[in-house]
Amino acid sequence: MEIAVSSGGTAMRLRDRAKVGIVIGDPCGIGPEVVVKAWASGKLQGLCRPVLIGSAAAVRRAMQEQGLNKRLRVIDAPEGLSGRADTIDIIDSGALDAADITPGADNPACGRATGVWLDEADSLARAGRLQATVMGPISSGAMQMAGVLDRVVQVRPGHSYLLLASGALRVAHLTDHVGLREVSALITADLIDSALRTLDGVLRQWGLASPRIAVAGFNPHAKGPEEEQHIAPGIERARAAGVDVTGPVSPDSVFRHCIEGRCDIVLAMYHDQGHIAIKTAAFAGNVAVILGPPYPHVTVAHGTAYDIVGRGIADHSMILNAIVTAGSLAAGRAFPTLQ
Amino acid sequence: MEIAVSSGGTAMRLRDRAKVGIVIGDPCGIGPEVVVKAWASGKLQGLCRPVLIGSAAAVRRAMQEQGLNKRLRVIDAPEGLSGRADTIDIIDSGALDAADITPGADNPACGRATGVWLDEADSLARAGRLQATVMGPISSGAMQMAGVLDRVVQVRPGHSYLLLASGALRVAHLTDHVGLREVSALITADLIDSALRTLDGVLRQWGLASPRIAVAGFNPHAKGPEEEQHIAPGIERARAAGVDVTGPVSPDSVFRHCIEGRCDIVLAMYHDQGHIAIKTAAFAGNVAVILGPPYPHVTVAHGTAYDIVGRGIADHSMILNAIVTAGSLAAGRAFPTLQ
Repeated sequence: MEIAVSSGGTAMRLRDRAKVGIVIGDPCGIGPEVVVKAWASGKLQGLCRPVLIGSAAAVRRAMQEQGLNKRLRVIDAPEGLSGRADTIDIIDSGALDAADITPGADNPACGRATGVWLDEADSLARAGRLQATVMGPISSGAMQMAGVLDRVVQVRPGHSYLLLASGALRVAHLTDHVGLREVSALITADLIDSALRTLDGVLRQWGLASPRIAVAGFNPHAKGPEEEQHIAPGIERARAAGVDVTGPVSPDSVFRHCIEGRCDIVLAMYHDQGHIAIKTAAFAGNVAVILGPPYPHVTVAHGTAYDIVGRGIADHSMILNAIVTAGSLAAGRAFPTLQ
Repeated sequence: MEIAVSSGGTAMRLRDRAKVGIVIGDPCGIGPEVVVKAWASGKLQGLCRPVLIGSAAAVRRAMQEQGLNKRLRVIDAPEGLSGRADTIDIIDSGALDAADITPGADNPACGRATGVWLDEADSLARAGRLQATVMGPISSGAMQMAGVLDRVVQVRPGHSYLLLASGALRVAHLTDHVGLREVSALITADLIDSALRTLDGVLRQWGLASPRIAVAGFNPHAKGPEEEQHIAPGIERARAAGVDVTGPVSPDSVFRHCIEGRCDIVLAMYHDQGHIAIKTAAFAGNVAVILGPPYPHVTVAHGTAYDIVGRGIADHSMILNAIVTAGSLAAGRAFPTLQ
């Protein structure tokens, strides 16, 4: 079945609108508020078919606080979603008792429930019943209390990579949360080659026809033993395998090259190399995509913001961006251009 | 003697206009063209008293190529400068034969002469006859041919530091051109403390009344052994000595804090940490100031651009910015706001 829907002047077929499961994040934070606002913006339904995963009670409370005149419908599975802007669909498996919600403060029941919802989203996506997932603002403190912090999708070099995108600047990270003096020993030609092939393959799936990847060097001006012994040889191997890749490029130039459109994405060698570029340039906001699971998994860049819970002032632009990005990548329409 | 001059609505006394010596850079590059254009812009004389140092023949050629109707006057010493926009003053000690200028190509005679001019500028500034110096675009290739690359002011941790500024973002670097895996061993509490005191003292001299310094961490989220054992203790010592300093701050947040005005300057731990921030944010251009000599020494961020020499299309905004910054810092007016 193909139904043409109108979205900002573009007709988009139903099958192009990916089913996106949105975990509401910790119910004590601003997650319920921002997902409800994003839904109510009316900007989602033309681009994807969203469904919330989490506590219906938390979402109902957020709707009431905002005086939102929509219908909240609890469904069992993504197959039951309405695809309508005036009906908020939520899969609530009963993992959390509404009495356990303590707005503005961590508690282990909410941490545990967040872990369950993340697992549910992952299972549905791996079964092909969702095409992408979004993780709203979780509380790592609450999840740690409940001993379920490992339910958050982890980055593991050689298997999965963190990709940050902000405007034209997109950065995948070869390594993540490791001490900077440990990074040098982790950079091998094998890992560079493998990361480049993974990146190339996933970007093609996501709709970038011929991804142009630039690799950042490790040292000032990309001149040092790591470049000579590992990075350059790894690049050569990936290039021989058909990947369109340049580098190693001087780390202080490569991100500007990307902003200027000279490449589609940068492969950064370490956490701060990419994070400094993204967070200092700071365009209209940024999204984080985990590259590795067999579906796009997008997370918001902000936290639970306990200090402003229930005040109705939380900004939903980041979660909106995350949902639209998830839907766009899953449908093979590449990274969306922010309005 | 105090003469009031008008500059963009501000009356500025003569003694507030610092004498700035501008080394024209390699005479085969765009240096002569951009210094002449900066002079002809008429924006310098209200803010400082500039004097060129270099080859009068090279400058005359650049003036002719641009059809510039100004007077070029060779003087012996800064004391003879005219301070007029219609008269370009140059100190030419005869270090270079005009016949040795080969536009668009390196040659050792020009490299050697560049070294002489840099020495002359440094001597005049150390003698208090110039209050600041600017280094135009040199050719390190030509200076290397002549074996005088060491005449360029070097950065040496514990003694001198590279400071980059672009709009509200200002970054001093604890270490410079060293391999990234060597940096950890260089970070000591002594060095942090000493760099912070130097930075605080120099910024006060330059006219920042109460400099607020933020120190970047070394590791992701500023959490690691370097922070615990060296950076935090160094900060504590400097704070006890009266320096207004915060940190270690997460490296991926600290530069945005500076852009937002939460501090006046960031002390970065390594070359790319600061350079990625400055060059990716990229406001109206940036300047590099060497902090360590007893006077402000400012350099341009671009090179000789041999490919466009003599075509009249070189952009002089960076050297203009460098000269205005040098004059402003030397007169204790802090960093200028770019127009």
